[in-house]
Amino acid sequence: MPKELRLSELAERVGGKLRGDGSVEVRGVAAVAEAGPDQITWVTDRRYAQQLAQSRAGAVFVPLDQGPTPMPAVLVDHPGLAMIKAIEAFAPPVPAPAAGVDPSARLHDTALLGKAVAVGPNVVIGPACRIGDRTVLHAGVFIGDETQIGSDCVFWPNVVVRERCHLGNRVIIHPNVTIGSDGFGYEFADGRHYKIPQIGQVLIEDDVEIGAGSCIDRGKFGQTIIGIGTKIDNLVQVAHNVRIGPHCILISQVGIAGSTQLGAYVVLGGKAGVRDHITIGDRVQAAAACGISKDVPAGMVVNGNPAVDNRQYLREQALVRRLPNMAEQLRQLSARVAKLEQAADD
Amino acid sequence: MPKELRLSELAERVGGKLRGDGSVEVRGVAAVAEAGPDQITWVTDRRYAQQLAQSRAGAVFVPLDQGPTPMPAVLVDHPGLAMIKAIEAFAPPVPAPAAGVDPSARLHDTALLGKAVAVGPNVVIGPACRIGDRTVLHAGVFIGDETQIGSDCVFWPNVVVRERCHLGNRVIIHPNVTIGSDGFGYEFADGRHYKIPQIGQVLIEDDVEIGAGSCIDRGKFGQTIIGIGTKIDNLVQVAHNVRIGPHCILISQVGIAGSTQLGAYVVLGGKAGVRDHITIGDRVQAAAACGISKDVPAGMVVNGNPAVDNRQYLREQALVRRLPNMAEQLRQLSARVAKLEQAADD
Amino acid sequence: MPKELRLSELAERVGGKLRGDGSVEVRGVAAVAEAGPDQITWVTDRRYAQQLAQSRAGAVFVPLDQGPTPMPAVLVDHPGLAMIKAIEAFAPPVPAPAAGVDPSARLHDTALLGKAVAVGPNVVIGPACRIGDRTVLHAGVFIGDETQIGSDCVFWPNVVVRERCHLGNRVIIHPNVTIGSDGFGYEFADGRHYKIPQIGQVLIEDDVEIGAGSCIDRGKFGQTIIGIGTKIDNLVQVAHNVRIGPHCILISQVGIAGSTQLGAYVVLGGKAGVRDHITIGDRVQAAAACGISKDVPAGMVVNGNPAVDNRQYLREQALVRRLPNMAEQLRQLSARVAKLEQAADD
Repeated sequence: MPKELRLSELAERVGGKLRGDGSVEVRGVAAVAEAGPDQITWVTDRRYAQQLAQSRAGAVFVPLDQGPTPMPAVLVDHPGLAMIKAIEAFAPPVPAPAAGVDPSARLHDTALLGKAVAVGPNVVIGPACRIGDRTVLHAGVFIGDETQIGSDCVFWPNVVVRERCHLGNRVIIHPNVTIGSDGFGYEFADGRHYKIPQIGQVLIEDDVEIGAGSCIDRGKFGQTIIGIGTKIDNLVQVAHNVRIGPHCILISQVGIAGSTQLGAYVVLGGKAGVRDHITIGDRVQAAAACGISKDVPAGMVVNGNPAVDNRQYLREQALVRRLPNMAEQLRQLSARVAKLEQAADD
Repeated sequence: MPKELRLSELAERVGGKLRGDGSVEVRGVAAVAEAGPDQITWVTDRRYAQQLAQSRAGAVFVPLDQGPTPMPAVLVDHPGLAMIKAIEAFAPPVPAPAAGVDPSARLHDTALLGKAVAVGPNVVIGPACRIGDRTVLHAGVFIGDETQIGSDCVFWPNVVVRERCHLGNRVIIHPNVTIGSDGFGYEFADGRHYKIPQIGQVLIEDDVEIGAGSCIDRGKFGQTIIGIGTKIDNLVQVAHNVRIGPHCILISQVGIAGSTQLGAYVVLGGKAGVRDHITIGDRVQAAAACGISKDVPAGMVVNGNPAVDNRQYLREQALVRRLPNMAEQLRQLSARVAKLEQAADD
Repeated sequence: MPKELRLSELAERVGGKLRGDGSVEVRGVAAVAEAGPDQITWVTDRRYAQQLAQSRAGAVFVPLDQGPTPMPAVLVDHPGLAMIKAIEAFAPPVPAPAAGVDPSARLHDTALLGKAVAVGPNVVIGPACRIGDRTVLHAGVFIGDETQIGSDCVFWPNVVVRERCHLGNRVIIHPNVTIGSDGFGYEFADGRHYKIPQIGQVLIEDDVEIGAGSCIDRGKFGQTIIGIGTKIDNLVQVAHNVRIGPHCILISQVGIAGSTQLGAYVVLGGKAGVRDHITIGDRVQAAAACGISKDVPAGMVVNGNPAVDNRQYLREQALVRRLPNMAEQLRQLSARVAKLEQAADD
């Protein structure tokens, strides 16, 4: 981790074009409003560039078509990605166990490890597992029998993945996550609930990230699927046989009930709930804490519980706010009508 | 795990009566709409039997009083239970540590294990614990001092059960569950919250199942109780001194606040919340995400937040949907009354 | 743990003044309605003292200004705190690993332990960590590199604290908690989400308690902060860069989105959600399951989703309850107006 980089060096690292004084010393990255003279900031869009006039930032990443800026600039295709590379340049290293198998780990004879796999203390890896190159398993991780994990993954401590699951490459699993637990399925007879064996698996595709404490149940039959590039926040519940498409975003404490399908690029706000056996189309956006109880067509923005079109929801909410007013109007109107009726009777 | 079974063998396994060709080879179980020619399906009720006309299933479990079917049938008392037995026949074995104590486990001298108990790697079992016959404790499980666990239980990895709890027979606890943590209780004085010691226990009766990541707090005094046969899904919170009756169903992300009591056969939908110190009667059903804020009599179906009778909730929701219409009606009516008033004035 | 104490001894232990028979034998503590003749109860306020007439309690803690009671009394400044001390007197000891480092623990050479630190089985402590005097780390706890923990803390089993976090004194962390996991931050480009490195830390001040399964994400830059004396229940989500003030109460399943700030003495009811980048003033109280979507000024009581002033919420809810009635009124009024119109036309 370098303590500081000249702006010219940073421009080279991010593959951008320097404009202005390249000798500026940069020590970190910060948002426009917070950055100081030794930090670089970024604007993702020409419209936001006017905020730079107030910024104390020592330098800025800007889009290629950006006009003059009050401080030296690095022109790039995508300032947001340049920002990520700059943070990486200044970031302290993320600790991990050394490559190799910790002596306290329990690795079954038939498990196959790729190159430079790091297996931390007290990790347990079952028979016939396969772990891809450079994957890191932190302390206390449990990998059940026959589970396969790709390359360049990071599993933080105390993650549990049960048997026969498949995880792709560059998957990141945060602490205390459970993958492959039994789905919640019973048959009711004779006054009690009989457990239905949950014999399916979980398939997690490449570039998925799963937040701390989240739970992904295995399929009853078949698979629970998390699509490529999908990002899941903390304490999220994904029930058996759910199929989540590519590049979705599930914010913290979301819950998705069994066999429901999500398309691509779906965004579910925090605490949103989705009932079982429904289909959510591509690019649907669901507001925080909403409750989706039926199919949602592609592209729709939904809100409320039960969730409806967001504009309808806002209209209804505005009218709920006006209910005291409406009740008063109704009372007055009733009085006026009574007066008219009395006049008519006279 | 057999790769295939003749239908006659399967009929024998489930204790059913074969009707039709017993030589059909069955390789698995699937729902009516998905089953192929090498799979058996099931119909739980004569009314659903007409769906069999469209099914590609090679065989079917049907009730004893079922008429002719398009494919060979096995007649049974309860097709749902036959389905479970058939899945078990085809299911891959569920991995578990071998009977005995793993050398890395930490078993206190005074802990008593029954016959054929399986204690996995890195398990910790405290003084004066008792573990019943054939119970399986997967890797990383922690059992606190004096806790007693029955026979034929399965505790998945990294489950934590603190001291002095009692768990019955055939209890299944999924990964990362916490049982017996301190209840959330404080006394406010001098501008700060003083912790009230939580000196009670947790009692979990026979045949309970608790989903991944769920938390069951110990009693403040006395016990938190989960009744026989109750099934709890993932990420559920059960606070101190809650008493849950027998055979309840708590779907994922439910939360129950302190000292509340649930009767028998209560069903709480996903994300439902129940406030503290109230009583929910037998067979109450609560819709997903509802918020129960007062006692609910036996048999009631509730919805909404605050939860009310489900029919009332649906009526109110329909009227909220009609609010824009009502506002417009009110506007028009007001104009009509104004016109009448003007006519009266003229 | 004494099996019984004479009331005179108990009065001395809690620093109170005995009134009446000091030879009464006390064996435990219970609430007014439940206490029996061998238990002591407490009333926090003179107004509640009349309940004592019905109580079977053998003795009672009362405020200094309390008049005569039906049973012997101990007069104290704060009966609630006397109750806590009495429970402590009767409580069974809370088990903990012995002081010292368990041979199965993995302690880095450069980690510094204070006096009488207890490090349980399979604990992992990284380089340059510092752990204060008498702190207890139960089995399976993971402490990442350079993390600092104060004195007299208790970390229950399988807690994960990642690198570079700071925790104060007397902090209690319940099982399966995650502290310092990556915040949920991505930059969207070229049809996928690029991970923004989360290089900040978590700062947890003195006397904080965090419930089982809760998750506290590290800052993106800078810190996520939990203020002194704040108590967090089970399964709570605190996102990156959240700043929680002193002495707050967060009930189970609360979620707070990124960069939001809470003042002092804020109380969030169970399942309440708070959106990102907003400010909640001192002593705000939020009802269970409410959804806070904008700044809330100090002292306000809020309810509903979106959360509004509680009185407004209750008024609106009452009107929603009256909607069927309003719809009927509207229908009748419309008929009466039609009748008047017809009369005017004739």
